[in-house]
Amino acid sequence: MNTWLQTKTWKEAKEAIEQSKGVAVLSIGSVEQHSYHLPVGTDSYVAIALAEEACQKTNALLVPPIWFGWSPHHMVLPGTITIKAETMIALTYDVIASLKHHGITKFVLINGHRIVNVIWMQLLGEKVQRELDVTVKIFDPAYMSKDIAASLGFGPVGHAEEAETSHMLYIHPELVHMELAKDNPIKEVPLYSVDPAYTHDTLCYVPSKYQSAEKNAKIAGGTTGEPTKASAEKGKIYHEHLMKHLITVIEELQGQ
Amino acid sequence: MNTWLQTKTWKEAKEAIEQSKGVAVLSIGSVEQHSYHLPVGTDSYVAIALAEEACQKTNALLVPPIWFGWSPHHMVLPGTITIKAETMIALTYDVIASLKHHGITKFVLINGHRIVNVIWMQLLGEKVQRELDVTVKIFDPAYMSKDIAASLGFGPVGHAEEAETSHMLYIHPELVHMELAKDNPIKEVPLYSVDPAYTHDTLCYVPSKYQSAEKNAKIAGGTTGEPTKASAEKGKIYHEHLMKHLITVIEELQGQ
Amino acid sequence: MNTWLQTKTWKEAKEAIEQSKGVAVLSIGSVEQHSYHLPVGTDSYVAIALAEEACQKTNALLVPPIWFGWSPHHMVLPGTITIKAETMIALTYDVIASLKHHGITKFVLINGHRIVNVIWMQLLGEKVQRELDVTVKIFDPAYMSKDIAASLGFGPVGHAEEAETSHMLYIHPELVHMELAKDNPIKEVPLYSVDPAYTHDTLCYVPSKYQSAEKNAKIAGGTTGEPTKASAEKGKIYHEHLMKHLITVIEELQGQ
Amino acid sequence: MNTWLQTKTWKEAKEAIEQSKGVAVLSIGSVEQHSYHLPVGTDSYVAIALAEEACQKTNALLVPPIWFGWSPHHMVLPGTITIKAETMIALTYDVIASLKHHGITKFVLINGHRIVNVIWMQLLGEKVQRELDVTVKIFDPAYMSKDIAASLGFGPVGHAEEAETSHMLYIHPELVHMELAKDNPIKEVPLYSVDPAYTHDTLCYVPSKYQSAEKNAKIAGGTTGEPTKASAEKGKIYHEHLMKHLITVIEELQGQ
Amino acid sequence: MNTWLQTKTWKEAKEAIEQSKGVAVLSIGSVEQHSYHLPVGTDSYVAIALAEEACQKTNALLVPPIWFGWSPHHMVLPGTITIKAETMIALTYDVIASLKHHGITKFVLINGHRIVNVIWMQLLGEKVQRELDVTVKIFDPAYMSKDIAASLGFGPVGHAEEAETSHMLYIHPELVHMELAKDNPIKEVPLYSVDPAYTHDTLCYVPSKYQSAEKNAKIAGGTTGEPTKASAEKGKIYHEHLMKHLITVIEELQGQ
Amino acid sequence: MNTWLQTKTWKEAKEAIEQSKGVAVLSIGSVEQHSYHLPVGTDSYVAIALAEEACQKTNALLVPPIWFGWSPHHMVLPGTITIKAETMIALTYDVIASLKHHGITKFVLINGHRIVNVIWMQLLGEKVQRELDVTVKIFDPAYMSKDIAASLGFGPVGHAEEAETSHMLYIHPELVHMELAKDNPIKEVPLYSVDPAYTHDTLCYVPSKYQSAEKNAKIAGGTTGEPTKASAEKGKIYHEHLMKHLITVIEELQGQ
Repeated sequence: MNTWLQTKTWKEAKEAIEQSKGVAVLSIGSVEQHSYHLPVGTDSYVAIALAEEACQKTNALLVPPIWFGWSPHHMVLPGTITIKAETMIALTYDVIASLKHHGITKFVLINGHRIVNVIWMQLLGEKVQRELDVTVKIFDPAYMSKDIAASLGFGPVGHAEEAETSHMLYIHPELVHMELAKDNPIKEVPLYSVDPAYTHDTLCYVPSKYQSAEKNAKIAGGTTGEPTKASAEKGKIYHEHLMKHLITVIEELQGQ
Repeated sequence: MNTWLQTKTWKEAKEAIEQSKGVAVLSIGSVEQHSYHLPVGTDSYVAIALAEEACQKTNALLVPPIWFGWSPHHMVLPGTITIKAETMIALTYDVIASLKHHGITKFVLINGHRIVNVIWMQLLGEKVQRELDVTVKIFDPAYMSKDIAASLGFGPVGHAEEAETSHMLYIHPELVHMELAKDNPIKEVPLYSVDPAYTHDTLCYVPSKYQSAEKNAKIAGGTTGEPTKASAEKGKIYHEHLMKHLITVIEELQGQ
Repeated sequence: MNTWLQTKTWKEAKEAIEQSKGVAVLSIGSVEQHSYHLPVGTDSYVAIALAEEACQKTNALLVPPIWFGWSPHHMVLPGTITIKAETMIALTYDVIASLKHHGITKFVLINGHRIVNVIWMQLLGEKVQRELDVTVKIFDPAYMSKDIAASLGFGPVGHAEEAETSHMLYIHPELVHMELAKDNPIKEVPLYSVDPAYTHDTLCYVPSKYQSAEKNAKIAGGTTGEPTKASAEKGKIYHEHLMKHLITVIEELQGQ
Repeated sequence: MNTWLQTKTWKEAKEAIEQSKGVAVLSIGSVEQHSYHLPVGTDSYVAIALAEEACQKTNALLVPPIWFGWSPHHMVLPGTITIKAETMIALTYDVIASLKHHGITKFVLINGHRIVNVIWMQLLGEKVQRELDVTVKIFDPAYMSKDIAASLGFGPVGHAEEAETSHMLYIHPELVHMELAKDNPIKEVPLYSVDPAYTHDTLCYVPSKYQSAEKNAKIAGGTTGEPTKASAEKGKIYHEHLMKHLITVIEELQGQ
Repeated sequence: MNTWLQTKTWKEAKEAIEQSKGVAVLSIGSVEQHSYHLPVGTDSYVAIALAEEACQKTNALLVPPIWFGWSPHHMVLPGTITIKAETMIALTYDVIASLKHHGITKFVLINGHRIVNVIWMQLLGEKVQRELDVTVKIFDPAYMSKDIAASLGFGPVGHAEEAETSHMLYIHPELVHMELAKDNPIKEVPLYSVDPAYTHDTLCYVPSKYQSAEKNAKIAGGTTGEPTKASAEKGKIYHEHLMKHLITVIEELQGQ
Repeated sequence: MNTWLQTKTWKEAKEAIEQSKGVAVLSIGSVEQHSYHLPVGTDSYVAIALAEEACQKTNALLVPPIWFGWSPHHMVLPGTITIKAETMIALTYDVIASLKHHGITKFVLINGHRIVNVIWMQLLGEKVQRELDVTVKIFDPAYMSKDIAASLGFGPVGHAEEAETSHMLYIHPELVHMELAKDNPIKEVPLYSVDPAYTHDTLCYVPSKYQSAEKNAKIAGGTTGEPTKASAEKGKIYHEHLMKHLITVIEELQGQ
C-alpha cells in the first residue's frame, strides 16, 4: 500500500518512485476562512483526501502536502494565511524540480482551493513544462464536477457552499459544524460568475478587493452558497465522481 | 469624439481624463501565429477594434495599445513574439500606476488573446487592486460571447477558428486570406477543453508544451477549429454582441 | 513593399524574415508631455516614422511599436505614462529573444525618446549581446543629428524644441498645434548640459527630480527650447538626414 | 486543548489567537535522506512533535507545518526535496505577515533541520523583525541540547545519528528501522566541525558540494554518527529537555 | 583635516557628517585591464585621488571606496572583475540609503570608469532621487575634461590612452610602466565614437561583444589611444582642471 | 612578494593567478559603529590585515577589499553603512564568477564582521559551489580563536570587546582610542549567547531589532564586553594564532 513520501526511508522512496511509473501527486489547498461551519484548512483537507486515496489506488507518489495557498481576498477573517502567488510558484517549482531529479516526470496538482490557486498553477505549469521538460495536469474539483453538480442539486460554485460542505461531511465529519452553517444564496450578477460551469457571458475572475470581501464576510460569515443543503451522502457521490476522474488522469499519465 | 491618448497634447489629455469619469481602456493582444489565413497581430486587432469603438461611445480613456502578449506555445511558427507573463504584469502595472497618478481609478483590460493572457491579467488585477486601490475588469471576447456563439453556429473556442475569423472579416477584411483558411475540426478529448463555455468535467488549461504545439502546427497551419465557416456577417453580430456588453461594463464603472 | 509584422500571416512573416537579411527594427518612444503644442505620443511617432520608411527601403523587419518609454521626470503633467527602466529592459529583451528564435540576429533600436531611453537601452544592449549572441545598435535622433542641427539653426537639444517640433511638422502636421507653442530658451548652466553635441565640461545626465520638473512645467508648459522657430521644411531636411544614416546603419548590418 | 489551526473555523481561530497571548509556533523541517533507518520526513516529524506538545501546554498558536526545507546537499539520495533558501524565506515571510495581520506578533520557529535551515531563518528573522515589527526566536534542537547531549553519551552532531535516532524512537518508533541502522563514526577533521557544541577552532559551515555528498552517501547510506547507540529512553530525556526549554521560551514571549 | 570615514569612530563620524554640510563623495572605479602599462585598478585610483583631495578641501564626507565596476567587455584579459550593473546599483543604493539615515542628502558619485559606469549610475541616480529624496551628481573625468583635453594635445577618449596615463603618472607614478606602453591610435569609424566630446553624428555606446573585445586586446594589449604621448605634467594640469570643477560642484551642493 | 591585485597590470595579474595555485582571498568586513574607541572600519581592517599577510606568505591572490557588510542592527549609531544581505551575496558572487573565468577555483572569505556576515556568506558559499563549481571556505576570527581566547583571558565574544580591541591595537594602534574605551561586561542571558564557543543551550542568533540596539547603544556607546582589558601583546598572540590557521587553510586548498 502506497503512502506519504515523508514516512519512507530513502530506499523505500526509491522503490516508490520506481513503482509510481513517473507520476507524483501534489495536494495543495489553503488556510482560509470557510465560514462558521467549516475549518480554515478545508481546501487542504479536500486536496489531501483525494491525493491520498488516488495514490493508494494507482501507486503514484504521494508528496507531502502544501497546506497553504493564495488567499488575499479572505484576509478579512482571522485564521486566513495568504501566500503570494509568486511564492507559491517558487515553492511548487522547487518541489517539482527536486522530484524531477529523482526521476518523476509527470505531476498532478490537486487544487483544493479552486479558481484562485488555478491562476498561479497555470503559470507554474507552463514554466516547469518549458524549463524542466515535465508534464503537469491541474486537477480542480470545481472544474471536475460540472457533470455531477446539477444532478446532486448543488447550486453554482461559491464558497463553503453545498459542494464543499458535503465533501467535508463525507471525508472529515468531525471538523464540520452543521449547526452553525448559514446560507447566503447566490444571486445572479449580470456579466459575472465564478462558476466554471456558468454558460452565460461573463467577465473573468479577479480576486475581490479587501473592502468588498469585508462586506461579504458580514452577510453570512463568509459563505457564498447554501451549505444547509449539504449531506454526507451527496459528498460521497461527489467524492467518488472526482476519484474516478482522478484515477483516470493518473493512469493515463502512467501509460505515457 | 474621443480618440487615442497618444494623439493628444497634455492639456487635451487632462480634459480627456476628466471626461472619462475615471475609466481607462487598455487593449492587449498578442503577436502570434494565426494559421495560414489570419495575420499574427489578430489578437491585438480584435482588442484594438473593441477598445476604439467603445471609448468613442463612452468617453473612456483610450490608452496606447500593447501589441504583445504571452504566447510561449506558439513560438513554433515564425513571427510569433512571446513576452513572459511576469513582464506583461510589470508593463501593465506601470501603465496603470501612471494613469492612477493622473486620476484614473478604474481599468478595463480588453484581452484579444483569450485564455492565455487571462492568466497573468488575473494576477495583475489582484496586485493593482490591492497595491494601487484601483478597480480592474478583464473583458475577454471568448468569455463574453458564450450566449451568442452557439446561435451563430460557432464550434468550440479553438485558435484562428470561425469566431476569430468572422470577427476579423468584419473589422479587418483586408488582412484576412480566406482562400488559405484550412479547417481542423475540434475533436472532443475526454476531461479536457479550453472552451470557457464547456459544460463537462475538465482539467484546467496549461499552455501546450513546445513539442505538442509543433505537432499541431503541422496539421492545419496552426488552426484549431473551422475557419471556412466564417463570414463577415457573423463577425458583425459577434462584434455588436461584445460591444453592447463592453459599453455596459464601462458605463457601470463610470457610474460608480 | 515591406510593412508591419503584425499585418502578416506567419507564412508572410517567414518570408519577411528571410528577406530582412537578419535585421529587425524596433521603434520605441514614450507617452509623455510635449508641452502645449505637441502630442504626448511625439517620441513614438518619431521612432515609428523613421522605422517604417527605413524598413520599406531596406526590407528590414518592421516590429510592432512599443509606444511606452521611461519618463519618471514628466509625470508632473497629465497623460504621461512611465514604465520602469527594468520593465522596458525586460519587455524589449523578450521581443529580441523571440525574434532571435526565428532567425533575426541584428537589431536596430530606434529611440524617439532621446537621452532617457538611451540609458536602459545600453543596459539591454549589453545583456542581449552577451546572453543571446545578437548585435544591437541604438539609433537616437539627437545623437544622429549633430552634424545638421547647427546648420538648421537649431539651438541645443531640449524638450519639445525646434528639432522635435520641426520633425513632427513634417511627419504629422495634423498633430501639431503651432499656435500654442511657447518658447523657453535654453540658458547655459555651468557644468551641465543634456545636449549630446555640447562641447564643454559637464556632469552626466540624471533625470530631474519631481519637484524641479514641476517648477519647469510651469514656465512654458513643459517646453525647453524654442519651438516657434520650427518649420516643416527644416523637419524634412532633418528627417532626410536621419534617414540617410539609418539606412546606412541597417545596410551595413545586412552586409555582415 | 489547543490544536492545529487548520482544524478550526475562523471563529475558533479568532479565539485561539486571543488565547495565544500573541505567540505562534511554526514547525519547519525537511524532506531529505536520513540514511537506511529513518524516514525522509524525520526533521519535520521532530519539529512537529515539539510544536504540537508545546502549544498544547502553552496555548501558543499551532500553525500548519511546513514539511519542506533547504537540502541541496542531500539531493544525491532519492526522496530528498530541496527548496531554495530564498523560497523558504518568501514562504515563511508570508505566513508571518498573514498572522501579524490577525494579531500575532511573536513567532517561534522550530527548526527540525538544524544548521542548514538556521541560515535562511536568520535572514528571515532579521527581515520580518525590521519590516513587520514582530519578534522571532529560532529554536533548534541541536543548539538547545548542548547541555544534555554529553550526559546522554551522544557523540557530536552529525546526520541521522544517535540524537536524531533516539528522538525518533521516542516520538515515532513506528517509522524507525533500527535493524537497518549503520554507524559512520565522526572522525575529527582539523579546523572543521558542524557541531554547535564544538569548542575548538573551526571554519564556518557551508553545505557540502554534490560530489562530496555523493561520496559520503556511499559510506553508510547517509549517516554521519552512530545511530546504533540510540534508544527511546535517551530520546525521551532528550525530548523532555528540549520541551522544558521550548516552554520557557514561549512563556517568556507570552509575558512580554 | 577630513579623511576616510572608515578611520573614524562613530563620534568622529557624527562630527564629520555635521561638517560635511550634507554632502558625501563616493569614489567608484573598476578592476579591469588597462593594457600593458597601467594597473587594473586604474579607474579606482583615479576616482579615489579625486575624492580624497576634494573632501580634504571641502569637508564633504569621504565614503570608503567601491573598488569594483561594471566591465563585461574587458573580461577577455586576466585580472578584470566585472560586477553586474544591477548589483552595482543595489550596492550603491544601500550605501546612499544608509548615509541618508544619518543625515547626508547630497551625493557626488566620482566615476573613474567613464562611459560604462555612467550607464548604471544614471539609473541609480534616478532611483535614489525618487525613492530616497536625495540629490545625485555624477562626476566623470571624461565628461569634465572636454575643455582641457584638446589644449593638452590629447586625442579622443579611448582606453588606457594619453589622458588616463598622464593622470596616473601624476597621481601614482609608481604604478605606471611607461616602458611597456604601446600605442593604438584611434581611427575614426563612420557614425560611431565613444568620446563625449565628439561633435559628429553617432550611434550610442553599447559595451563591445566578447569576440570584438578579444580581437582588440590582441592589437595593443588593450590600449585604445596613444599612451606614449602621456606625461606627468599634462596629468597635473588635467587633474587640477578636474579638481577645480569637482570643488565647485561640491560647494554648490553644500550651499543648497 | 605578492600584493593587491589592483596594483598589477593584467600581465602581472596573469602571473599572480598562476602562482596562486588557484586560491584567492577576499577580505570582507563592515563599516559600523565600534563604540567610542574603535573606528567604524574595524571589521574591514581586521579582514584586510589577515588577508594581506597571508597572501604575502602563500602567494594566494589578494583581491581588492569589500569595505562594506550587512549591519542592520548598528544603524542606530552614525557612520554605520549597511548593505542588504542579498546585495552582499550578489556582489561577492560576481567577484567570484569573474575570478573563476580567469582560473581561480578556490576562495577563502575572510570575514572581519563575525556572526552577521557569516549568515549571507553561507548562502553565497552554497550558491557558488553549486552554480560555479568552485570551493569556498569561510574564515571567521571569532570561530577560529576559540582555542586561544580563554588562555588570553578574553571574555565571551561581544562587540568592540577585548579581542577586537587587542587585535586593532596590534594591527592599527593609530586608529584606537584606548582612553575612550568603556566596558559593558557581558551578563549571561538564559538560553542565549552569540559566542560560537558557548557550550550551553541557546537559541540561534537573529540580528537585534532597532529598538533594542538603540537601548544597548546608550549603555556603553555600543560596546558589549570589556575593551579596557585589551592590549597589543594579546592582539599579537591572537593575530598569530589566526594567521597560523589561515595559512594552513590556504595551503591545504593550494594542495588540492
